[in-house]
Amino acid sequence: MTLRLSSRAVIRPFVLNSRGLATATHLPKMKRGPTGIVLLNMGGPSTIPEVYDFLYRLFADRDLIPLGRYQETLARFIAWRRTPKIEHHYEEIGGGSPIRKWSEFQATEMCKRLDKLSPETAPHKGYVAFRYAKPLTAETLNQMQQDGVKRAIAFTQYPQYSCSTTGSSLNELWKVTKSLDPNSEIKWSVIDRWPTHSGLVKTFAQLIKDKLNEYDPEVRDKVILLFSAHSLPMSVVNRGDPYPAEVAATAYGVMSELKFTNPYRLVWQSQVGPSAWLGAQTSDTVKSLVRKGQTNIILVPIAFTSDHIETLHELDLEIIKETKVEGIKRAESLNGQPMFIDALADVVHNHLKDGAVASNQYPMQCPMCTKEVCSNSRRFFLSQ
Amino acid sequence: MTLRLSSRAVIRPFVLNSRGLATATHLPKMKRGPTGIVLLNMGGPSTIPEVYDFLYRLFADRDLIPLGRYQETLARFIAWRRTPKIEHHYEEIGGGSPIRKWSEFQATEMCKRLDKLSPETAPHKGYVAFRYAKPLTAETLNQMQQDGVKRAIAFTQYPQYSCSTTGSSLNELWKVTKSLDPNSEIKWSVIDRWPTHSGLVKTFAQLIKDKLNEYDPEVRDKVILLFSAHSLPMSVVNRGDPYPAEVAATAYGVMSELKFTNPYRLVWQSQVGPSAWLGAQTSDTVKSLVRKGQTNIILVPIAFTSDHIETLHELDLEIIKETKVEGIKRAESLNGQPMFIDALADVVHNHLKDGAVASNQYPMQCPMCTKEVCSNSRRFFLSQ
Repeated sequence: MTLRLSSRAVIRPFVLNSRGLATATHLPKMKRGPTGIVLLNMGGPSTIPEVYDFLYRLFADRDLIPLGRYQETLARFIAWRRTPKIEHHYEEIGGGSPIRKWSEFQATEMCKRLDKLSPETAPHKGYVAFRYAKPLTAETLNQMQQDGVKRAIAFTQYPQYSCSTTGSSLNELWKVTKSLDPNSEIKWSVIDRWPTHSGLVKTFAQLIKDKLNEYDPEVRDKVILLFSAHSLPMSVVNRGDPYPAEVAATAYGVMSELKFTNPYRLVWQSQVGPSAWLGAQTSDTVKSLVRKGQTNIILVPIAFTSDHIETLHELDLEIIKETKVEGIKRAESLNGQPMFIDALADVVHNHLKDGAVASNQYPMQCPMCTKEVCSNSRRFFLSQ
Repeated sequence: MTLRLSSRAVIRPFVLNSRGLATATHLPKMKRGPTGIVLLNMGGPSTIPEVYDFLYRLFADRDLIPLGRYQETLARFIAWRRTPKIEHHYEEIGGGSPIRKWSEFQATEMCKRLDKLSPETAPHKGYVAFRYAKPLTAETLNQMQQDGVKRAIAFTQYPQYSCSTTGSSLNELWKVTKSLDPNSEIKWSVIDRWPTHSGLVKTFAQLIKDKLNEYDPEVRDKVILLFSAHSLPMSVVNRGDPYPAEVAATAYGVMSELKFTNPYRLVWQSQVGPSAWLGAQTSDTVKSLVRKGQTNIILVPIAFTSDHIETLHELDLEIIKETKVEGIKRAESLNGQPMFIDALADVVHNHLKDGAVASNQYPMQCPMCTKEVCSNSRRFFLSQ
C-alpha cells in the first residue's frame, strides 16, 4: 500500500494495480472540495489592449524562446515592435482571440459529463490556465484555493507533447504552486498527452468528412488533406522533442479512421525568425500545389483544440483568402463540437480510473535537454 | 467494366469494387506464367570487391543525392575516395552485406505461403531488385522475362515511403522497363508503403519484448526504446517527403502494441556530409542519455527489414560497442523471423485481393517536387 495520489480532498490509501500504477482503494465517502480539472493552453489576448502583454510573456518564456541573459529586455523590445502588426491581425479576426471563450465552454461542458461518468470523484470543476494570457496560472490557482480544491488534474490542451508547449505550461504550474501552495495542499496529477485518443481522432475525421462533402463527388476522393501543425525550430527537434512524431501519429490515426480515402501530407506552419524550422511549410506547400494545378485542398489544424490566430488569420486569411482559389478550404476546429467535449470527458475519466500520476512518457526529459526546471517540475508532479 | 490491371498472363476484364478500385472478375483459368513479386531495396555489396560499384551507383543516383551536371564524375570521385573506409566496414561485419541473402530467403519463403493463401494467382515467384548492388533491376527483369512472367508486383521493402528510397527504386524500374519491355508485356502493380501493417508492427513489438526480457525485471519498464531510422537531408524533408511522418506512424504503432510500457523516442541515424539533416541523431541521443546516467537503452531499427551496414556496423559497432555500456542493446532485425515472413505474404495477399494498382497516396508527388521522372514513373505504373 502506498500514498502516491489522491482523488479526494483527504489523502486516501492506494494500492498498485496490475500495470504497477497507484490506484485509490474504495473508502467511505468523506466531505471534500471539487475535483479541479485545469485546461492548460498558451491562450491569446481576448481584447486588443491585451496584445502587448501576451506578446511580452511569450517572448519572455525561456522554455519557448531562449534569448539568453537579456531575455526580459529583449522580450519587451520584440513585443513592443510586433504589437501594432499583431493588434491589426486580432482586429481582422474580430477584435481578439476566441480561445478563452472556447476553453471555458469546453471546461464547463466536460465537467457536466464527468459528474455523470464519475460520480465518485464529483463534483468536478473546470478551470483554465493560460501561459501567456488571462487567466494566468496564478489567478487560476488562487481561485482553486478559494474553491477548496484539494485534488486537481493538469490537463494539457495540446494533444501532442512538446517541451515548448505542455512542458512550458507544466514548468509554470510547478513554479506558481511552489509560491502559492508551498505545503502542497492540492494534490496534482497530469494528463500530459493524448495524441491518438479515439474521440479526438474520430472528431477530426468527422470534421474532415463534413468538409469533403462540400466538394463535387467527382473530385471528392482527389482532394488533398494537409494536416497543419505549428512548427518547431530545428534546434528543438534535434534536441529530441517528441512533438513531431506525436503529431504524425495523430494525422496517421485520422487517416486510418478515414480509411486513407484521400492523399494527404503533414505540414508545418507559423515559422518565425531567421533560424531553421521543421518543414514542409504549410504556405509553401499550398502555393506549390496550386502551381501544379492541384487546387482542391483541405487544411486541417491538427495540433490545436480551439480556433486562434493561427487558424483564423494565418490559415483563413493569409493562405486561403490570399490564394483566391475556391477549392481551398479549412476543416472546422474542434471548439465546441459535442463529440470533442465527449472526448475531453473520456480522457479525464480514463485518467481518473487509471489512477496514474502521469503517462509513462512524462518522466523522460528530452535526451539532449539539460534544463534544471524540466527535471524539477517533473520531480514535483511525479512525487504527488 | 474497365481494363486496368491484370493478375493473369492474359488481360482479364475488371469491375470496380466498393472502394472504387479495379478488381478482377472470375474468368476460367488459362495457362499462365508465374505471378512475379519483386522485392525492391537499396541492396549492399555481398563481397568486398563490389564495394566501389555499390558506392558509385549510390552517389550517381540523382533521386537520392542530386549533384548537378557533373553527377557522374563526382560520383566516381566520391566513391573512389570512400571505398577503402567502407571496404573496411564491410570487412568488420564479416566481408559483405547480408541483405541479398535475407532478401532472397524472404522472397522464397513468402511465395511458399502465397501459393497456399492465394491459389488463384499461383504459382508465385519471388525476385529481388536492388538499386545499387547485384541483382540490379535489369538483371531481374531479364530473368522475369525468361520465366514468362506477365503479371508482377513491385513490392517495396522500405515500409515507409520516401522519394529517396522507394521513389528511386520505382523510377529505376520504370526506366529499365521502358528499354527492356517496351511493349509492356508485363503488367505491374505497386505496393508502395505498408508502415503500420499489423504483422510488421507485431513482429517489431515481439523483437522488442524479447530484448526487454534480457533486462532485470526491476529495471525492465525503465529501459528507453530508441526507434532509429535512416535520416533525410532537411532539403528532402522540407520538400514534403512523407517518410518522417510514416516512420513516426510505425514507431507509434509498435508502442501501442506494447501498451506504452516504456519511454521511447524516434531518432535518426546515418547523416553524412555538411548539410542539415533531420534529428535528433541516434548517436548524440545515446551519448546524452548515458551522460545523464540513463544506460538501459534498446536501439530498434524501424525503417529497414534486413540487417545491413547501418545496423551491423553503425549501431552495433560504432554506437553500442564504442559506448562500452552493458545496458545498451539492439533489437534483432526482421530478417528471417517467421512472423515477419507471414506479414510479407499477408501484405501481398491483401494487395492481390484488393486489386488496386497502388495505394491512394502513390499518385501524389511531393508538393515541392518538380522532377519529371517522378511524374513519368507514376503515370506509367498508374496506367497499368
